[in-house]
Amino acid sequence: MDINELNQFAQQLIREAGQRIRDAFSYDLEIETKSNPNDLVTNIDRETELFFIERIQAFNAEHRILGEEGMGETVTDLNGVVWILDPIDGTMNFVKQHRHFMISVGILVDGVGKLGYIFDVMREDLFYAIAGQGAWYNDSPLRQLQSLPIEEAVIGVNARWVMQNEQVNHEKISDLVRTVRGTRSYGSAAMEIAFVVTGKLDAYMSMRLAPWDIAGGVIIANEVGAVTSTLTGGPIDFLSSNHFIIANPSIHDVILRDYIEVLC
Amino acid sequence: MDINELNQFAQQLIREAGQRIRDAFSYDLEIETKSNPNDLVTNIDRETELFFIERIQAFNAEHRILGEEGMGETVTDLNGVVWILDPIDGTMNFVKQHRHFMISVGILVDGVGKLGYIFDVMREDLFYAIAGQGAWYNDSPLRQLQSLPIEEAVIGVNARWVMQNEQVNHEKISDLVRTVRGTRSYGSAAMEIAFVVTGKLDAYMSMRLAPWDIAGGVIIANEVGAVTSTLTGGPIDFLSSNHFIIANPSIHDVILRDYIEVLC
Repeated sequence: MDINELNQFAQQLIREAGQRIRDAFSYDLEIETKSNPNDLVTNIDRETELFFIERIQAFNAEHRILGEEGMGETVTDLNGVVWILDPIDGTMNFVKQHRHFMISVGILVDGVGKLGYIFDVMREDLFYAIAGQGAWYNDSPLRQLQSLPIEEAVIGVNARWVMQNEQVNHEKISDLVRTVRGTRSYGSAAMEIAFVVTGKLDAYMSMRLAPWDIAGGVIIANEVGAVTSTLTGGPIDFLSSNHFIIANPSIHDVILRDYIEVLC
Repeated sequence: MDINELNQFAQQLIREAGQRIRDAFSYDLEIETKSNPNDLVTNIDRETELFFIERIQAFNAEHRILGEEGMGETVTDLNGVVWILDPIDGTMNFVKQHRHFMISVGILVDGVGKLGYIFDVMREDLFYAIAGQGAWYNDSPLRQLQSLPIEEAVIGVNARWVMQNEQVNHEKISDLVRTVRGTRSYGSAAMEIAFVVTGKLDAYMSMRLAPWDIAGGVIIANEVGAVTSTLTGGPIDFLSSNHFIIANPSIHDVILRDYIEVLC
């Protein structure tokens, strides 16, 4: 496989999907509620995933697709080429703000991340990486992340995780929030990951993310030295949901050691 | 006074200040730490305030300026025309993200808000209002905010306020976070207020804001039906810092009644 050819195809496809989404704002959004009210899904979300599936299968029928909307085949292993994609990460932002939502795409070959993309649809900003070759923000190469003390970090963490919950010791997360310089919460995992790989945030953590929320970002992270893991320090599993952290390499271990206690 | 002439002058001045800030990114930022590490201030911040002061005084020497950097005269009353301005709201975003910071300007006549502006410097997006005439986002008139139930609201609230603190009962704020559909935190009060007046957020609250953080936003809020008050429901004082809430009118009172208990 020619990785550069695949990269060119993927970039063109993502930009085209973004254009379709921007055009679709001229229509009304038919919004449905899936399993819970935080999980809005729109017709545009599904149509975008179908668009990806059709175009990828026309490009190479052996490529498989693991997508948020589940409109591709069921993927239970990572053999061969697998696209892991979220057509709209940050659905609530999409519906309510008409900004701050991302297309997230990771392309794996035999389970190894090769190409990663996060595309800010409204800004037309592309963060991407080619494994072993580097990462870029549009036309600019991304630098390796610089070290910083935890006290100077700005981290992405949702207010819910400093409240009593069944997944992590919220008192320790509260200590972390008191220690760092500031916190942010943008409502899109892919956006927060894109901010970490560009040094706009220094860490981002979440208690439950699916493969399509993070696959693109994890592949970009590897190229700039950002560390990704579960909250117990384990590797990311691209076939199941899990808790997740991405952080500047100088603060990843101290966050896990001093501020994270997983309860379940 | 011709309010439309003043509006034209203010808009031109704000856009020019924004251009100067964008240009300044080509220079190094000399960053200093003020009273605490969360309160960065840069030379650009100060230079922008001086630019406003010089141009406003050349326009009309009787206008007074109350600014974050305190480089105008000391303002202890609101007689005559007073500009309340923050040259860069969201200094940490400015330094670290090079986006998500705002110029915030309110113009009061004898204590009454007449003109309000929030300018997203990097996007070149202007939110503004002329009291009694309406509000605009760039060239589009802003609509009155539509009602919604609290369960569907997305609110701006920092993680620190759901942790034990001396200012509000954090258990009640935690109940609010559990009740609403989602929370966000952007690190710029003016940005969060601009999101509320355009319906991208449904409420935003903070435990301590200065007049320059909110003056522009409060004047815009009045024109779209957003309700602004202290957390005990009192009026905003443009001469001192206080806690603050801006909310969609359908949820302002219920938030104050059921979820806010001010401790000090």
